[in-house]
Amino acid sequence: MVNSIVLPIKKVFSLVDSKITVEIKDDVRKLQGRLVAVDEYLNLHMDETFEMTGDKRGRNLGTVVIRGNNILSIAPVA
Amino acid sequence: MVNSIVLPIKKVFSLVDSKITVEIKDDVRKLQGRLVAVDEYLNLHMDETFEMTGDKRGRNLGTVVIRGNNILSIAPVA
Amino acid sequence: MVNSIVLPIKKVFSLVDSKITVEIKDDVRKLQGRLVAVDEYLNLHMDETFEMTGDKRGRNLGTVVIRGNNILSIAPVA
Amino acid sequence: MVNSIVLPIKKVFSLVDSKITVEIKDDVRKLQGRLVAVDEYLNLHMDETFEMTGDKRGRNLGTVVIRGNNILSIAPVA
Amino acid sequence: MVNSIVLPIKKVFSLVDSKITVEIKDDVRKLQGRLVAVDEYLNLHMDETFEMTGDKRGRNLGTVVIRGNNILSIAPVA
Amino acid sequence: MVNSIVLPIKKVFSLVDSKITVEIKDDVRKLQGRLVAVDEYLNLHMDETFEMTGDKRGRNLGTVVIRGNNILSIAPVA
Repeated sequence: MVNSIVLPIKKVFSLVDSKITVEIKDDVRKLQGRLVAVDEYLNLHMDETFEMTGDKRGRNLGTVVIRGNNILSIAPVA
Repeated sequence: MVNSIVLPIKKVFSLVDSKITVEIKDDVRKLQGRLVAVDEYLNLHMDETFEMTGDKRGRNLGTVVIRGNNILSIAPVA
Repeated sequence: MVNSIVLPIKKVFSLVDSKITVEIKDDVRKLQGRLVAVDEYLNLHMDETFEMTGDKRGRNLGTVVIRGNNILSIAPVA
Repeated sequence: MVNSIVLPIKKVFSLVDSKITVEIKDDVRKLQGRLVAVDEYLNLHMDETFEMTGDKRGRNLGTVVIRGNNILSIAPVA
Repeated sequence: MVNSIVLPIKKVFSLVDSKITVEIKDDVRKLQGRLVAVDEYLNLHMDETFEMTGDKRGRNLGTVVIRGNNILSIAPVA
Repeated sequence: MVNSIVLPIKKVFSLVDSKITVEIKDDVRKLQGRLVAVDEYLNLHMDETFEMTGDKRGRNLGTVVIRGNNILSIAPVA
């Protein structure tokens, strides 16, 4: 029923080792960093992570694991 | 028990490659763009995505993966 | 353990092709329309859908797929 | 690992055909009515349902299906 | 991959028949009572339950079933 | 499809017995303590737990089980 070639998660797997922006549900902050690992629930392991509020860089978080269900969106850093 | 011909997700599969509007839970923004891929959780891979607040076009997001559980509704762009 | 005759989802299946009112979690709006399809997660495919705020009819949404986890309740239109 | 005799859901199954009070997550309203059916996700089919705000009876909802994940608690009416 | 001896849920199973404090997500109230039963989703069946707001005892709830996904934390009463 | 060596949850397993900071969804508090156990849902069993609001240490919680779905992020204490 689902063509595995086009699964949305494949797009995220293709971003491992590159910089991503993660929008958190109900949160003005975004997180930006390098994607180290991702699983089928979109749980993310990131490093070199920092907070962004609007276009302004905020706190450094370093290494962090983010639970997938609280993520709104994942996008490559342009 | 479920007639697979009429599953709601089939409606979404039929929208792949066309323009959709995505309403986000607890968010004034909608996202509009082309649906590239969707899976059984309604995770979406979209491109040419931009934000809409009311009828006003907002920021361009480009390529984005949206986690299904934070989506309220998906509709074809009329 | 569960008597399949009385599963809550059976009640919703019985509403396919009839008018329903859908209460959305944390939202003053209700959605009203014809139920086209439903699955085991209570994802809904509706058409002829419009928003209701209190007893006042709002915007027409037409065809829409609503993700089940963001639905609070489903009721037949009396 | 789990003793099926004491599963929380068994308590809810024992309430079928009796009056229950349902507390909704992030909602001042409670719902009160007769439990017609329940499944393993705590999705509820209720009838003779009405809203309660504090101790004050509100709108009649009649027959309604409530999605389990948005329920905070279920209790027998004393 | 997971050592079953140390699963978090085992800690909760060990609390059956003793007093627990339950923190609810996005809620100033805590619930305190005796844990009667728990399942793998952390759905809880409690009795002798009452509300706590800060350190102040509130309403008696008696017997109640709480849905696991809306629970933030479970702790033994010291 | 998923390389088990790099699963995000492996990062969390590696933190068992060390100090972690847990960010809670929609909550100004963070929790800090020793990770005793974790499962595949990121349910956590922690001890020596205390609340942090910003950089200020708050209440001691001691032993606590936190439900995974309400966790935003998990990070090692630097």
